[in-house]
Amino acid sequence: MPEITVNMAAGRTDEQKANMMRDITQALVTHLGVDPEAVVIQINEAPLTHKMKGGKTFVERAAEQKK
Amino acid sequence: MPEITVNMAAGRTDEQKANMMRDITQALVTHLGVDPEAVVIQINEAPLTHKMKGGKTFVERAAEQKK
Amino acid sequence: MPEITVNMAAGRTDEQKANMMRDITQALVTHLGVDPEAVVIQINEAPLTHKMKGGKTFVERAAEQKK
Amino acid sequence: MPEITVNMAAGRTDEQKANMMRDITQALVTHLGVDPEAVVIQINEAPLTHKMKGGKTFVERAAEQKK
Amino acid sequence: MPEITVNMAAGRTDEQKANMMRDITQALVTHLGVDPEAVVIQINEAPLTHKMKGGKTFVERAAEQKK
Amino acid sequence: MPEITVNMAAGRTDEQKANMMRDITQALVTHLGVDPEAVVIQINEAPLTHKMKGGKTFVERAAEQKK
Repeated sequence: MPEITVNMAAGRTDEQKANMMRDITQALVTHLGVDPEAVVIQINEAPLTHKMKGGKTFVERAAEQKK
Repeated sequence: MPEITVNMAAGRTDEQKANMMRDITQALVTHLGVDPEAVVIQINEAPLTHKMKGGKTFVERAAEQKK
Repeated sequence: MPEITVNMAAGRTDEQKANMMRDITQALVTHLGVDPEAVVIQINEAPLTHKMKGGKTFVERAAEQKK
Repeated sequence: MPEITVNMAAGRTDEQKANMMRDITQALVTHLGVDPEAVVIQINEAPLTHKMKGGKTFVERAAEQKK
Repeated sequence: MPEITVNMAAGRTDEQKANMMRDITQALVTHLGVDPEAVVIQINEAPLTHKMKGGKTFVERAAEQKK
Repeated sequence: MPEITVNMAAGRTDEQKANMMRDITQALVTHLGVDPEAVVIQINEAPLTHKMKGGKTFVERAAEQKK
């Protein structure tokens, strides 16, 4: 404990994800005073079809950004 | 905010999922008065082997329904 | 199944929450073809000190909106 | 209700997972007095690159255990 | 790891909850072969107004059962 | 997006929690390149009776540490 779940859309590299999780671990060690070994993080990654913001799937949002 | 997570078994089409997420977005806009852009929804989809109800996996439940 | 979790900050009335959950239920019945009795929704409500967006807690965001 | 989510790294067999979920179902039936049909469990499984403990991804942890 | 989250409505005793969590821990130790110390369980408990099944809040469902 | 959920036991100050959430926000901005406004974090805090590790509730673990 604590346990962190990150809900995010697919599209980042493994290196980006590992670096993000390392910094999140450090944030908990620094501010809560917990042992690093007690910090567990899991990314629940969704394909772009499984995520929506503002009433549009991330497929639709990605298509709009390309325009 | 708010953030909605939908835990469901695999087997629906992308169109069914997008329509469901659109209506959920609308439910929050209507009843909470939030901006649509503030509503984020993620489907965490599980294969039938990773979900159980009533002591039976969704593989077993699907097999029973076919009988 | 499916199971829906709504993460939101405190501050809405019970009536707003019930209406929102009813419409979410309907969204799943309509688009996934499930029985209403199979749809379970839980709101995990956080006090304003336990939620952050844009690097500011919802306490800080509420204070800014009042200005 | 209740709804149980199990966050775990990939690597177990379907049989291990089904047995685990059956025993979790039984734990709820025994101690909460609920009907088995009311107990829903979903495993959200992450690839080893999407999970970290002690500041190391499960890829790094697996590599260390092999040494 | 693994991390288990139990979403449930208020109304059980601390003893019921502790017994349930102990048996869930045992289910994971038995079937996944993990160390007990690696098993973390959290109950996210909702007031009856924050949970809905079958289009009715748990307040409404409790009222119906009393009839 | 992304949305982060932190499951933790009660006992930290609001300042510790705000500092932790600020650093988590920064971790995502730095490594994923997202806008801070897109990062939403919620702490789901459990009383010590609602959390177990190693087969012991956090009430039992706290009692042991005092000995």
